[in-house]
Amino acid sequence: MDVQKKINEWLTLNREQAIRLLKRLVQERSITGLESSAQAVIIEKLRELGLEIDIWEPDFTELQSHPYFVSPRSSFTDSANVVGVMKGTGGGKSILLNGHIDVVPEGDPKQWEYDPYGADVVNGKMYGRGTTDMKGGTVSMLLAIEALQALNLPIKGDIVFQSVIEEESGGAGSLAAILRGYKADVAIIPEPTSMKIFPKQQGSMWFRLTVTGKSAHGGTRYEGVSAIEKSVVVIEKVRDLEVLRNSRIDDPLYQSIPIPVPINIGKVSGGNWPSSVPDQVILEGRIGVAPEEEMEDVKREFEHYIGNLGEFDDWFVTHPVEVTWFGARWVPGTIDLKHEAMTLLENNYKKVRKQNPVIEASPWGTDGGLFTKVAGIPTIIFGPGTTEVAHYPNEFIILDHMMEAAEILANMMVEWCNMEDES
Amino acid sequence: MDVQKKINEWLTLNREQAIRLLKRLVQERSITGLESSAQAVIIEKLRELGLEIDIWEPDFTELQSHPYFVSPRSSFTDSANVVGVMKGTGGGKSILLNGHIDVVPEGDPKQWEYDPYGADVVNGKMYGRGTTDMKGGTVSMLLAIEALQALNLPIKGDIVFQSVIEEESGGAGSLAAILRGYKADVAIIPEPTSMKIFPKQQGSMWFRLTVTGKSAHGGTRYEGVSAIEKSVVVIEKVRDLEVLRNSRIDDPLYQSIPIPVPINIGKVSGGNWPSSVPDQVILEGRIGVAPEEEMEDVKREFEHYIGNLGEFDDWFVTHPVEVTWFGARWVPGTIDLKHEAMTLLENNYKKVRKQNPVIEASPWGTDGGLFTKVAGIPTIIFGPGTTEVAHYPNEFIILDHMMEAAEILANMMVEWCNMEDES
Repeated sequence: MDVQKKINEWLTLNREQAIRLLKRLVQERSITGLESSAQAVIIEKLRELGLEIDIWEPDFTELQSHPYFVSPRSSFTDSANVVGVMKGTGGGKSILLNGHIDVVPEGDPKQWEYDPYGADVVNGKMYGRGTTDMKGGTVSMLLAIEALQALNLPIKGDIVFQSVIEEESGGAGSLAAILRGYKADVAIIPEPTSMKIFPKQQGSMWFRLTVTGKSAHGGTRYEGVSAIEKSVVVIEKVRDLEVLRNSRIDDPLYQSIPIPVPINIGKVSGGNWPSSVPDQVILEGRIGVAPEEEMEDVKREFEHYIGNLGEFDDWFVTHPVEVTWFGARWVPGTIDLKHEAMTLLENNYKKVRKQNPVIEASPWGTDGGLFTKVAGIPTIIFGPGTTEVAHYPNEFIILDHMMEAAEILANMMVEWCNMEDES
Repeated sequence: MDVQKKINEWLTLNREQAIRLLKRLVQERSITGLESSAQAVIIEKLRELGLEIDIWEPDFTELQSHPYFVSPRSSFTDSANVVGVMKGTGGGKSILLNGHIDVVPEGDPKQWEYDPYGADVVNGKMYGRGTTDMKGGTVSMLLAIEALQALNLPIKGDIVFQSVIEEESGGAGSLAAILRGYKADVAIIPEPTSMKIFPKQQGSMWFRLTVTGKSAHGGTRYEGVSAIEKSVVVIEKVRDLEVLRNSRIDDPLYQSIPIPVPINIGKVSGGNWPSSVPDQVILEGRIGVAPEEEMEDVKREFEHYIGNLGEFDDWFVTHPVEVTWFGARWVPGTIDLKHEAMTLLENNYKKVRKQNPVIEASPWGTDGGLFTKVAGIPTIIFGPGTTEVAHYPNEFIILDHMMEAAEILANMMVEWCNMEDES
């Protein structure tokens, strides 16, 4: 019996235990700061698999000085990263499998048809916060490793499994894992791509624009300058910049995407009295960073553009709009489309799913950017979760996809990890 | 010696005690809810003048059912209105002198060069919160009454002095005084008009517009509909409505005013995450109501206009902008330009100041609207405070103006209150 068939049979036999594992993970509400109980489930599984386990709380002080560090918190106490290494017999290529254990909060429970932490299985889907983003992907990775072990398949290169914290708030968990020294010849992150393969990921940064007006009584509003009306100009001009930035993108991976690197203004607040002309408005948004762009270049272009708004409206000459960069930041990532790991992933995708994979550039950043830019590890994003339901009420995962992703990963790793390591 | 000269001399002699009275009033921080210590100063003065005094806390439950009632609070405990009546000898026309004792908060103390409650006198100006708006006007009224008394000038009609609460939050104090039954043939309110005479006052109402979008991830913002971008459309259309409404105004009193009845959008807030397409924006503003307009007609026009935004943008057909009326509301007021009280006020203004008064329509509402619409009392707004500094840091009053306003009022009352009452 060939390897592919063995893997398929083992996975078929172990489907129920895989679903139970996902259920246990989803039932732990691992929002930022509360990751430990879900990590405990991971640790238990890694012990069962007999991997070399490394559990540590990232060192805030050490991370703080890193240029790529962002985090909303001031300590990682009780928020440990977990790594399990399956040592190969030597001489083969290594692979890093990374998943984040943190989930975004469930939001208004009234918008959920299912208990967000109930992990109900209905018609082949499991419902709950984190099913898709990305505990299902994590189960796919663990299943793939377990299949290789259970089937006693010889593996030369190391497999490094990581369950990290804090992806949803900027990637401090993966950054800490990189700084701890974990390396590999390639990385795969099974974020919810709806089974698409993303060799490139858009990065993004948050900006804050402070627009100044001049206060006056609303009854004589002509004596003031409304920061709300000036914000309208800023919003329109930011849209023009978005058009300009996207006009430069000719990557065929972005062919079917209406706006490859959007600039989104997500928050607005200004004024403090309905009867007063508002003298300040704050706009907060996210600027997309193309996979090949440097974040510093994008900052400079944005600041330069906003600094020149006086060309369109004299007011801004004397009252320039202030730009600040704050909060979250996701680094763009990329891997060569002809990289051997890409070829293996595509081939095994075709073998398992009997169809060609969709290969696209992701519209959002992942920790993959950190692996690319900080660790120099080519990274592919490919996972079983459904993109559309990530962060939404009634988040679910299609369980067949979770099993298929595990099968693709297991088959790919058998080939990849037995390739000669030339480094 | 003629009456005018006597009044002038008495006021000159009593300038210092008038400044002391203003000082004592300004030193009491009578923001909403804390009016009692300033009212105590008023009461003491009314006792000294021997007027018939009426002190009462407005009845919240009674007021609540009145169509013109608005208030941010739920009780008037410790916030009493104060009225003092100087009975005439009978048969003459009566006059109501109304001032509000409440002041707006001082705001950021760092923006003040003087202690906001220090009542410092520098170069003929007194600085402090409430000097201009409108404790200085209140002192002018009290001085005028005291002059008539001190000089033993015969007065036929009654003079009703009112020191009310809550003008700054919608006029509940004056409404309560009206409902208590106080009436007169004319009313004067010495709000800070910079010595201009306002026979007409603009009213205003607060509206809230809820603009709906469709949420999406910022990286795929084309899958959502930004409530911020839709708000831009709403803001532009509200500006068009302002143009339309003002194009109908041909009152010569508004000739020199760029926008007679402005619509001001004073507050904006929306979205909750820089990386998400915002699905709701709330705009809060103030719509000016022309002196002759009915507030209900203005509401209907505004609602109808906002309800038809779908003509300009299909989105609003399926996602109509919601209009709510909330918070403060100031009723427009008006008096016939040929009213005898207007003529007397203008004549005495000329006699005292040796120049023609500026007669305009006010850009903001006062409690005068309530006297006009609810009590049917023709009302004139004329006072010594400086319009530009009301509600601002470093608010001040020109003390000469306070004395001149007192002189004009005293002279006018001598004539008005001795006119035959034909009613």
